[in-house]
Amino acid sequence: MKRSVAVIGAGPAGLTLANLIQQSGIDCVVLERASRSHVETRARAGVLEHRSVMLLQSLGLADRLLAEADRHGTCEFRVNGQAFQVAFSDLYEGRQQYVYPQQEVVKDLIGAFLDAGGDIRFSVSDVELRNLTSSQPSVVWTSADGVREAITADFVAGCDGFHGVSRKSIPEGSLTEFTHQHGIEWLSILAEAPPSTKAVIYALHADGFAGHMLRSSTISRFYLQVPVGTKAEDWSDEQIWEALHKRFALHDSSWTLTEGKIIEKRVLDMRSYVVEPMSHGRLYLLGDAAHIITPVGGKGMNLAMNDAATFGRALIDFYGTGSETGLKTYSEDCLRSVWRAQEFSQWMVNMIHTDMQSPFFGRLAQARLEHLSQSPAYQASFAENYVGPIE
Amino acid sequence: MKRSVAVIGAGPAGLTLANLIQQSGIDCVVLERASRSHVETRARAGVLEHRSVMLLQSLGLADRLLAEADRHGTCEFRVNGQAFQVAFSDLYEGRQQYVYPQQEVVKDLIGAFLDAGGDIRFSVSDVELRNLTSSQPSVVWTSADGVREAITADFVAGCDGFHGVSRKSIPEGSLTEFTHQHGIEWLSILAEAPPSTKAVIYALHADGFAGHMLRSSTISRFYLQVPVGTKAEDWSDEQIWEALHKRFALHDSSWTLTEGKIIEKRVLDMRSYVVEPMSHGRLYLLGDAAHIITPVGGKGMNLAMNDAATFGRALIDFYGTGSETGLKTYSEDCLRSVWRAQEFSQWMVNMIHTDMQSPFFGRLAQARLEHLSQSPAYQASFAENYVGPIE
Repeated sequence: MKRSVAVIGAGPAGLTLANLIQQSGIDCVVLERASRSHVETRARAGVLEHRSVMLLQSLGLADRLLAEADRHGTCEFRVNGQAFQVAFSDLYEGRQQYVYPQQEVVKDLIGAFLDAGGDIRFSVSDVELRNLTSSQPSVVWTSADGVREAITADFVAGCDGFHGVSRKSIPEGSLTEFTHQHGIEWLSILAEAPPSTKAVIYALHADGFAGHMLRSSTISRFYLQVPVGTKAEDWSDEQIWEALHKRFALHDSSWTLTEGKIIEKRVLDMRSYVVEPMSHGRLYLLGDAAHIITPVGGKGMNLAMNDAATFGRALIDFYGTGSETGLKTYSEDCLRSVWRAQEFSQWMVNMIHTDMQSPFFGRLAQARLEHLSQSPAYQASFAENYVGPIE
Repeated sequence: MKRSVAVIGAGPAGLTLANLIQQSGIDCVVLERASRSHVETRARAGVLEHRSVMLLQSLGLADRLLAEADRHGTCEFRVNGQAFQVAFSDLYEGRQQYVYPQQEVVKDLIGAFLDAGGDIRFSVSDVELRNLTSSQPSVVWTSADGVREAITADFVAGCDGFHGVSRKSIPEGSLTEFTHQHGIEWLSILAEAPPSTKAVIYALHADGFAGHMLRSSTISRFYLQVPVGTKAEDWSDEQIWEALHKRFALHDSSWTLTEGKIIEKRVLDMRSYVVEPMSHGRLYLLGDAAHIITPVGGKGMNLAMNDAATFGRALIDFYGTGSETGLKTYSEDCLRSVWRAQEFSQWMVNMIHTDMQSPFFGRLAQARLEHLSQSPAYQASFAENYVGPIE
C-alpha cells in the first residue's frame, strides 16, 4: 500500500490536516488507536478561537459549528469578592470565541472526511514508524481485525498526542525538550447544571482558583485548584459545591451558583511541554505530539489546528509546485505561535492561582488582576492574546 | 525635646517627607546614621518617574533637576542579535523618565530643607524607638559628639532602609513579610565611558542579561547577569568588556560599544520584599524600610517618594483638620502602588533574564520580548507601567 501522507491520530490536528489535504487531492490514510465512537464522545477542549473557526469555514467544515456554537465576547474575573468583566471582543475587532466541544469538532471532521471518500482506520494497535529519514518512510500497524498491515508514504504526520508513538519514534538526542511542571492541580468537574453565568468566570480566592466554564444550556464545567497530590475521589460532591460557592462568592451577594448532578471529576496536572524542532526527517509533529499547554486560556486545540493548517499548506505547496520552503519553515512557523501561547498561558496561570508556597506570588497575582480590572491598555493587550492571533 | 515628627533616615523618602511637612509648618527632626558627605555622594538609583518629578516640582525642589536631568522617552531591547525600541513616552501622553542620580536628589533635598531652617542630625548612632503604640513615642540616639539624646514625637517616620532600626523595632508577629529571592545576580559596573546609546538598552542573550543604563555624558552604568554566587573580583575588566560586547552584539554590526575605565563593580542580588501593614502604632514605614524591589523597571526610589507624598499628605490632613483618615489608609494606599510595581518588575525580570535552570522559561522570556517588539497593544501596556502611574 502506498499513500502520499500517513496521518497518525484522529484528533483535531490529524483530522483537520486530513480534510485540508484531501480537498487539494493529496491522498492520505488516518490511523487511530481508539474506536470511532470513543473519539467522537471524548470530552476534552471546548473553545475555538476566531482563527480556528475561519480555517474550518474555509474548508466548508464549520456549518454545524456556526449554527450551534455559543459565541462569547466577554469573560469575567473575580478577586476579593468583587467581579469585573473584560469585553475582549469589543477590544479586538469584534472577534469572538466559540464554545464547541472537541468531540463535536471531531465528529464533524470525521463525517466530512469519510463522506469525501477518506480512509480512516480505527482501533489500530502496535503502530510503528520506520525509515523516517529516508524519502519513503513506512508505517506498520495491526488492524482492528488483528491483521498486520503496512504502507509507505512520502510524509508521516504525527498527530497522536503527547503519549503517542510518533514523537517516541524519534531517536534520543534529536529533539530538545522544554518542560515545566507548574506545581498546580485542578479538580475538573462536569455537572448537569445549567450555566450560572453568561461569561466564563476565573476567580482568584485565598483557597485557590475556581473556574466556571460554559459547555451547553444543561452542562457546565467547573475547575477547582486543589493541593498537589489530591485524588478526585477525595472530594465529595458536597465538598465540591461548598468550595465553588465559597470561591465564587461576591461581597454584594448578587450572584447564585446553580448546582446539578456531578457526572465527571478528575484531577488535571498543570504541565507545559514543547519540543524543538517539530519534525524529524519526513515525520512532522502536530498538536499535543509536539507541545502541551495548560488549559488556561484555551489554546491547546487551537494550536493543534494551526499546526495542521501550516503543515497542510506546506504539503499543498510541495505537491503543487515542488517547493520545500513550507516544509522547511514548518517547525519555526508553528513554534512562534506555540511559544506565544505558552507565554500568555503562563502569564494567565500566574494571575489566577493562589501560590500556597509563596505568598509573595499570591500578592502579585492579585496585583495583576487588579491592574487588569483598571487599565484599558492592559485589557486591550489581554484581549489580543485571549482571542488569539489573526492570520 | 519635642517634635511633631521624628524622621529616621535622610534618603529620598525621609528627605522628601521632611521638606513636604516642613513647608506646611509641621516641625520635625531628621536623624541619619551616615555623614552628610556620605549620603550626598552615595550612588544608587538613577531614574525619576514623571510622578516623582511632579511631586518635587510642586514643592519647588525640582529646579536643578529640570535644568540638568536627561529626559528619556524611548528604551531599547535586544534579542537574538536584533534591536527594537519602544517609544514609551509617545505611547503614554508624552510622559518621560528623568535620569538624575539619587545622590543629586538627596543633595537638593538636604540643601532646601536646611535652607528653610530644617534640623538634620547626621552621623548619629544607636537609634532606639520607644513606646510606638502610645500617643507619644520617643526616639533616643547618640549624637555625632557621643552625647545620648532623646525626643518625643507624635509620629515616627521610619525611612531608614531595609537594614534600618525602624522595621526591626516592630514586635515580631505584627507584620506579615512577603519575600522572593529571584535566584538572579547582576554584576553592576560603573565606567568612565560616554554612553554608547541614546536609549537605555536591555539585552536578552543566551549567556544572560546585559543592560546599558545612562548616567551622564562621561559615565555609564552597565549590568551583566552573572551566575549566582559570583564575586565581583572574579570578573576582570577585560572579561567584563568582552561579555558586554558579546551580549549587546547586533547581527548587522550597526553598533559599537565604547569602553572606558571601570570605577566600580559590585554584585547585586535580585530580591523582593514587602511588609504588611506599613505601620505599627505611631510608627510609619516608608521606602526600603517597608519594601525592596529589583532594580528592573527603576521603581525603587519612586516608590519611596510616593510613600513620602502619601504620608506627608496624611500628616498635613491630621494637623490641619484632625482627620485620621489619611493615616488609617496610608498602608493600603501605598501598598497598592508597591504591589503594582512589584508585579511589573517581576514581569520585566522574567522577560530579560536567561534562566539557566529552566530553558522553558528562557523561551518564554524570548516570546515575551518578541511579542513586545510586535504588538502595539502590548507596547502601550508596557509604556503605562514603565513610565509609572499618573496621580
